[in-house]
Amino acid sequence: MVDFSFELGSFISILDYLGTIAFAVTGASKAIAHNADIFGIIVLASVVGVAGGITRDMIFGRFPTAFSDPIYISLTAASGVVMFFLYSKLKRQMATWLVFDAVGLGVFSIIGASIAHQVVGLEFLPMLFAGVITAIGGGILRDVFVREIPIVFVKEVYAVASVAGIVVFYAILSSGVDIQVSSIIGIVVATGIRLLAMKYNWNLPKVQES
Amino acid sequence: MVDFSFELGSFISILDYLGTIAFAVTGASKAIAHNADIFGIIVLASVVGVAGGITRDMIFGRFPTAFSDPIYISLTAASGVVMFFLYSKLKRQMATWLVFDAVGLGVFSIIGASIAHQVVGLEFLPMLFAGVITAIGGGILRDVFVREIPIVFVKEVYAVASVAGIVVFYAILSSGVDIQVSSIIGIVVATGIRLLAMKYNWNLPKVQES
Amino acid sequence: MVDFSFELGSFISILDYLGTIAFAVTGASKAIAHNADIFGIIVLASVVGVAGGITRDMIFGRFPTAFSDPIYISLTAASGVVMFFLYSKLKRQMATWLVFDAVGLGVFSIIGASIAHQVVGLEFLPMLFAGVITAIGGGILRDVFVREIPIVFVKEVYAVASVAGIVVFYAILSSGVDIQVSSIIGIVVATGIRLLAMKYNWNLPKVQES
Repeated sequence: MVDFSFELGSFISILDYLGTIAFAVTGASKAIAHNADIFGIIVLASVVGVAGGITRDMIFGRFPTAFSDPIYISLTAASGVVMFFLYSKLKRQMATWLVFDAVGLGVFSIIGASIAHQVVGLEFLPMLFAGVITAIGGGILRDVFVREIPIVFVKEVYAVASVAGIVVFYAILSSGVDIQVSSIIGIVVATGIRLLAMKYNWNLPKVQES
Repeated sequence: MVDFSFELGSFISILDYLGTIAFAVTGASKAIAHNADIFGIIVLASVVGVAGGITRDMIFGRFPTAFSDPIYISLTAASGVVMFFLYSKLKRQMATWLVFDAVGLGVFSIIGASIAHQVVGLEFLPMLFAGVITAIGGGILRDVFVREIPIVFVKEVYAVASVAGIVVFYAILSSGVDIQVSSIIGIVVATGIRLLAMKYNWNLPKVQES
Repeated sequence: MVDFSFELGSFISILDYLGTIAFAVTGASKAIAHNADIFGIIVLASVVGVAGGITRDMIFGRFPTAFSDPIYISLTAASGVVMFFLYSKLKRQMATWLVFDAVGLGVFSIIGASIAHQVVGLEFLPMLFAGVITAIGGGILRDVFVREIPIVFVKEVYAVASVAGIVVFYAILSSGVDIQVSSIIGIVVATGIRLLAMKYNWNLPKVQES
C-alpha cells in the first residue's frame, strides 16, 4: 500500500529554508557586485534572509525566530561563503536563483500571514502587513544598503504577487479550508504570479510623462 | 441656543486623517517622480503615511494602529491611486499639499507624544522621541527609498518644528491644562513654525566651509 | 593602604558614554560634510549614538534605555553642538576620534550581548545578534542617511571585530568567569582587533573579478 500522506509542515519548512537561501544568495550577489569583503557578504546575505522575519516579529511582539533557531543564520552564512567561492561560476545560473527567489517570496508571504493569524486570529489587515513585510523587508534593506531604489517600488510584478497570494490564502482560510492546504495554495499563487511576471515580462502601469 | 462645543477628539482624528493623506501624497509624488508603477506608488504612499506610527508603536510595545484600523491603509492606498490618475494635474497644486504636510507634521508630533504620555506618563524624553519618530519616520524612509538624503537632515526648519510643538505641548500639559487643549496648542505651534519657515524660507545655521 | 579595587560597572558606564560620544561625533561629521544644518547635525549625531541600542531594545521587548535615561541624548546632542562649533579645528584630530569609535564598537558589542544574556540567558545566537546590532546599527543608519554604502559591508575589519569580541565574551562567560571580567576581556578583544586593523590596514578577502 502506498502512503501518499506527507508532512505538510515539514514541506513548508523545507520551502522556508530554500526561500531563506535564495534571499541570502540575492544579498550575497549584490554585496559581491559592490565589492564587499567576505564578512560583508555574509552580513548582507543574512540581512536579506532574515530581516523581513525579524521586523515582522518585532511588530507582533514575538522573539525573532532567527535568534532562537540557529538554522536560519547558518543557512544565510553558508550561502554567503558558497557565493564567495563560486560567484564567478554561479552568476551564469542566476536565472535559476530567481526561481528560488520567487519561491521565497511566496513562502515568506504565507509564513508571515500565518504568524499574524496565530497571534491575532483571522484578520485580514494584520495578515496582509505581516506577510508583505516578511516577504519584501529583507529585499528592501538589501537594495537600500547598496544604494539602489528598492526593486519593489520600481520594477516588475513583485510585491503585488505577495499581496495576491495573501489575499487568496485569507479567502480560502476564511471559507473553512484547512490551514496547510490554504498555505500551499497561497504559496502557489504568489510564486506562480511572480514566475509568470518574470517569464512574460509583466509590468504594472506607470504615470505617463507628458 | 447655539452649542459651541464640539468633539476635540474627532477634530484631532480628522487632522490625523488629513496628515496621513498629506504624507501619503508626498510619498506617491516621489514614487511617480522615480518612475514607480501603480503598486510601487501605493506602497510608498502607505510607507510614508504609516511607517512613523508603526515604528513608534513597535518601540512602545503597542500593536500598530495601522494594523488594527483599516482607515489608515485605505486612505494611503486611495491617495496613491488618486495621485496615479491626477498627478500631472495635481503637481501644479503641490504647494497646497505642502500645507497639509505641515498639518501632518504637527498632528503626528502631538499624537506620538500623547501616546507616550498614555503609556509611560508625563515624561519628557519618551514624549519627545515618540512625537518626533511619528512625525519624521515616514518621511525619512521615503527619502531613503528614493536615494535622497532625508530632508530632515539637510533642509529647512522641519524636525525642529516638531520638537518645538512637543516642548510646548509638554510644558502646557505639565502646568495642568487639559490634554485636548494642550494638543491643539502643540499642533498649532508645530504646524505654524513649519508654515512660517516655508513662507519666509527660514533656515538653521550650517557650518561655514573655510 | 592603596585600594586597587574600582567599580567595574562604573568603568563600563564611562566607556559606554565615551562610545556614545564617539559614535555621535562620527554622525555629526558626516552630517556636516553633507551640508546639514545645526539641527540635522544634532539629529544624525543622536541617531548614530543611540539607534543601535534602540533597535536591540525593540527586538528584546525592553523599553529603550535612551528613552528612560536622558544622559544618552544629552551626550549626543552636546556632541553635535560641539562639532558644529569646532568642526574645522577638530577635523584634523579625527584619527583620535577613530580610536574612540573603536572603543565604542567594543563597548557596544559587549553591552548588547550582556543585555541579551540578562533577558534570555547564556545563549550564543541572541547574544551575538544583540551585540552586533548594538554596535553597528547606528553606523549603518548614518551611512544610509548620507547615501553611502554602510562601511560594515565594504571596508575594513569592522563588524568582524565586534563578532570576535562577542565570541570571546561568550566563551569566557560560559567557562564560569565573572561577567565583569568577561566584559572587559570581550571589549579589549573587539576594540583591539579594530585598532590593529586600522593601524595595519587589515582587510578581509574579496571576490577576485576575472
